[in-house]
Amino acid sequence: MKVGFIGLGNMGLPMAKNLLAAGHELTVWNRTQAKAGPLREKGARVANTPAEAARGADVVISMLADDHAVQDAVLGKDGAHAGLGKGAVHVSSSTISVALSEKLTEAHASAGQGYVSAPVFGRPEAADAKQLWVITSGPRADVERVRPLLEVLGRGLTVLGEKPSAANVVKLSGNFLIASMMEALSEAFALTRKSGIEPKLFLEVFQSVFARAPIFERYAQLIAEEKYSPPGFTMKLGLKDVGLVLDAGRGAEVPMPLASLLRDQYLGGVAQGHGDLDWSAIGALVAERAGLKKR
Amino acid sequence: MKVGFIGLGNMGLPMAKNLLAAGHELTVWNRTQAKAGPLREKGARVANTPAEAARGADVVISMLADDHAVQDAVLGKDGAHAGLGKGAVHVSSSTISVALSEKLTEAHASAGQGYVSAPVFGRPEAADAKQLWVITSGPRADVERVRPLLEVLGRGLTVLGEKPSAANVVKLSGNFLIASMMEALSEAFALTRKSGIEPKLFLEVFQSVFARAPIFERYAQLIAEEKYSPPGFTMKLGLKDVGLVLDAGRGAEVPMPLASLLRDQYLGGVAQGHGDLDWSAIGALVAERAGLKKR
Amino acid sequence: MKVGFIGLGNMGLPMAKNLLAAGHELTVWNRTQAKAGPLREKGARVANTPAEAARGADVVISMLADDHAVQDAVLGKDGAHAGLGKGAVHVSSSTISVALSEKLTEAHASAGQGYVSAPVFGRPEAADAKQLWVITSGPRADVERVRPLLEVLGRGLTVLGEKPSAANVVKLSGNFLIASMMEALSEAFALTRKSGIEPKLFLEVFQSVFARAPIFERYAQLIAEEKYSPPGFTMKLGLKDVGLVLDAGRGAEVPMPLASLLRDQYLGGVAQGHGDLDWSAIGALVAERAGLKKR
Amino acid sequence: MKVGFIGLGNMGLPMAKNLLAAGHELTVWNRTQAKAGPLREKGARVANTPAEAARGADVVISMLADDHAVQDAVLGKDGAHAGLGKGAVHVSSSTISVALSEKLTEAHASAGQGYVSAPVFGRPEAADAKQLWVITSGPRADVERVRPLLEVLGRGLTVLGEKPSAANVVKLSGNFLIASMMEALSEAFALTRKSGIEPKLFLEVFQSVFARAPIFERYAQLIAEEKYSPPGFTMKLGLKDVGLVLDAGRGAEVPMPLASLLRDQYLGGVAQGHGDLDWSAIGALVAERAGLKKR
Repeated sequence: MKVGFIGLGNMGLPMAKNLLAAGHELTVWNRTQAKAGPLREKGARVANTPAEAARGADVVISMLADDHAVQDAVLGKDGAHAGLGKGAVHVSSSTISVALSEKLTEAHASAGQGYVSAPVFGRPEAADAKQLWVITSGPRADVERVRPLLEVLGRGLTVLGEKPSAANVVKLSGNFLIASMMEALSEAFALTRKSGIEPKLFLEVFQSVFARAPIFERYAQLIAEEKYSPPGFTMKLGLKDVGLVLDAGRGAEVPMPLASLLRDQYLGGVAQGHGDLDWSAIGALVAERAGLKKR
Repeated sequence: MKVGFIGLGNMGLPMAKNLLAAGHELTVWNRTQAKAGPLREKGARVANTPAEAARGADVVISMLADDHAVQDAVLGKDGAHAGLGKGAVHVSSSTISVALSEKLTEAHASAGQGYVSAPVFGRPEAADAKQLWVITSGPRADVERVRPLLEVLGRGLTVLGEKPSAANVVKLSGNFLIASMMEALSEAFALTRKSGIEPKLFLEVFQSVFARAPIFERYAQLIAEEKYSPPGFTMKLGLKDVGLVLDAGRGAEVPMPLASLLRDQYLGGVAQGHGDLDWSAIGALVAERAGLKKR
Repeated sequence: MKVGFIGLGNMGLPMAKNLLAAGHELTVWNRTQAKAGPLREKGARVANTPAEAARGADVVISMLADDHAVQDAVLGKDGAHAGLGKGAVHVSSSTISVALSEKLTEAHASAGQGYVSAPVFGRPEAADAKQLWVITSGPRADVERVRPLLEVLGRGLTVLGEKPSAANVVKLSGNFLIASMMEALSEAFALTRKSGIEPKLFLEVFQSVFARAPIFERYAQLIAEEKYSPPGFTMKLGLKDVGLVLDAGRGAEVPMPLASLLRDQYLGGVAQGHGDLDWSAIGALVAERAGLKKR
Repeated sequence: MKVGFIGLGNMGLPMAKNLLAAGHELTVWNRTQAKAGPLREKGARVANTPAEAARGADVVISMLADDHAVQDAVLGKDGAHAGLGKGAVHVSSSTISVALSEKLTEAHASAGQGYVSAPVFGRPEAADAKQLWVITSGPRADVERVRPLLEVLGRGLTVLGEKPSAANVVKLSGNFLIASMMEALSEAFALTRKSGIEPKLFLEVFQSVFARAPIFERYAQLIAEEKYSPPGFTMKLGLKDVGLVLDAGRGAEVPMPLASLLRDQYLGGVAQGHGDLDWSAIGALVAERAGLKKR
């Protein structure tokens, strides 16, 4: 396929390289043109503007840092939107806001162009090794059309329906999960370290108990299915244990705001009469507060 | 070995069963004696008090619901402490407070008895299938003495040094990590669901991206080693992404208190001049607030 | 003075009425023109567009619901900006974002017009009774020019310097303080009520101890002056008391997230070695996390 | 009356001094006996143990630092409990836990002694100037008996029913309100200061708008009466304003965890369909989460 590629940063460069290696015809653009050198050597054309990269392409893929950069390179003067032909498709792989994704959906639709969201999970090394996981959403026909390109980029692909912004919400949720885990780990390491336990040892336990076992997966499933009864471990016991965590933190002088948040969740659950549900029923409390009904 | 076993609940019963099957001589005690029936049939003796279960034993193992139950069954009238002989060892597998663990350490020491903490990770099914992960701490000689028993119970064992309460802190930290993950997952499911994404689909992405990949393990390692530079993904970008998560939550009307907490962490990190560290440097912020110095 | 007045909602209508009563010549505009009836009867002219209300005026005052409404009525088609003459001044009394205030500052400056922020504290009854407190900021000359109008509206006026957005930040901070107090009161009422104390009785204590005494004022002063030593009541004692609050909440089954937040603040303060400062040194912790240095 | 007084710290000393000045016969005890000097000079007897201070007294008042100190001085060896006669009353003015207050209630009752809680609001200067506000609870007859003493100590008194621990909950709630206000003020000062506003100026606004006006009192009343409709200012607007606060904090790089908490409250309120209630309906959200029903 004829592919325009916009944005050659840590992620974009290896992605473009892989598309080129797979035999696609690439025209690339980057704000700092020097970065395009290695790709030019392997046969890519280098454009002076995003519009030029998009002109004549079947598909233009953008991989940029933030909303601002995408707005400029796509909707700005000499942006990809201006160059892209009718019927061609823009694949946006950047981590952007839901609002901008919706704006792009409209802008491309009103120009008779296709628009597909396809953010990726994975760091630069994963991009290089074609080990990204791609999540995508958009009109079915457009998704099918760009699928061969997306399959070149990673180890797998999930299609999330026809609304382009869906993939953006899921990508953001994924980054949120990672950040949450880091907050949790940070508090746990601080607590154990102040209690005299070597980080290396705690890491070892973490690896043995959590990282290689499907423990989180099981809880994710319980929450996805809203199956909080019969309990494996109750909210009341969860409240007890988180209370003990906070007591230990108090003793070791370690503030643990996430533990405090969890305590308030369990305490609220118990206060509202849900103490005998499974402790994963935090899922029900959060959903209720969001105005969601049990399905 | 001659083993006393105190507490035959969901966890204790399968653990005792496995010790019996491994050829150890068991005397068991449970508040509700009826629960001991299946073990009696397989050759266990049934005691009328914890003290009786401990009398003459090389090792007494307790697996009870909470601090209160342990306090009663071990230090109370006719408790295990009263029955246990000089030189014998109490292995406490319950999830109890650091304070109670320290109290037990003293009580047993002053009676010339050994005390080892050995809480376990895993649900009843795992206990039944000998798939628990055991973490233990206590005086080296005592730990070595009870090791053959602990190895019968699970798929692996981590020794956490000579201070018995260390294993309790680590067990509590593990439960804290699970609860954190559930809060995070709950918020993520609420956000994606209110944004029109089927929970089943989000679960699929979670399984593909997180559950089978060692992603959390890598972050745990960065935090354990305090290696926040060079960054793979910066705090500034973390702040941006968590901001977008909150914006999406605002749009879908989903309160996300954990996301709010993360935003404040990243914002504080940036405000204090750490914006270009890796986003896992939450670890540094939490540690600093706990009065820990960089190692 | 010749005054244009834009926005006749719950707040705008009584403000406009008071300006009219004070002898100023008013031209008013409201999206729903019917609302202007009572003012027309008292001699105000009614304009068809914000631009028309601004045309020929010395000063145009806007009092609208949110950023969106201000953006439309001032910078939109037929907005006040288009009608306002060179040298005339726009006084913005709405509670708007810092970003929009900065945008208005530029827009008016580039058209040779003045711009002054003048948000108000007080509910509709206070507006009616000329009991608002006005906070204002902007170029000194412009502020002086509109001062006679602002003095008609309320019981007092604070000038906050020459940067218009300063008054917006202060107005937002004021609303934040009110909301904080409501969260705190809500948690306190829930705790005392679940502990069997009549809300009426707790209200009585609140009125006796807090509402009529300058207690908050004193703490505000300590934080404003960063005078945390010698302590009147230490962080360590604060940690103790907030811990007791949480214990009481635990007993009565009342989740208190603000109390949890406070506990983590005090615990962090103690962990970092500030346990003997006055408990108002939360001010120092918050400032430090924001990257502020002690003055 | 014959009064025993236990604890001559910053608060106890001026309280004892005032009782002496009012003509009561005092026997005082303090861990560090030297502190009793000034009182001895004015005619007080100095006891060697709390028991001795209590012996023969009509009333013994204790004013100590924390649960631990009270436990020791009252229930410990040579504690006041041992010395106090049948029918005499212990007045506990320390800020202690609900649990200890309940334990003291039982201990005194079973010895035929009376027990009244009477914690106080006010700092040492207020104690000295007889400007404390006393809150008290306990059996009516006992409260009436000690009332003349309590009236000597402060500017007023609220009686909170017959259950002694009620006054402890209210005292803790009061300290919680003060700490909340300090967190709120700290965040507001950090935000305004980083936005270029002199703390002195913001303090001035605070004093003008909040400290001398009964604004908090009105909100306390709305929450006490659960009167959230008709709204003076809606939850939706509250959500908007707190959102703007957080945006301003984002811009100025000021983490504001309390503002984040408030945002999540308002967002939850709106998500659950309460967006048009008064913004003080945070009271309803907190109460509901605590399992309380609307009255």
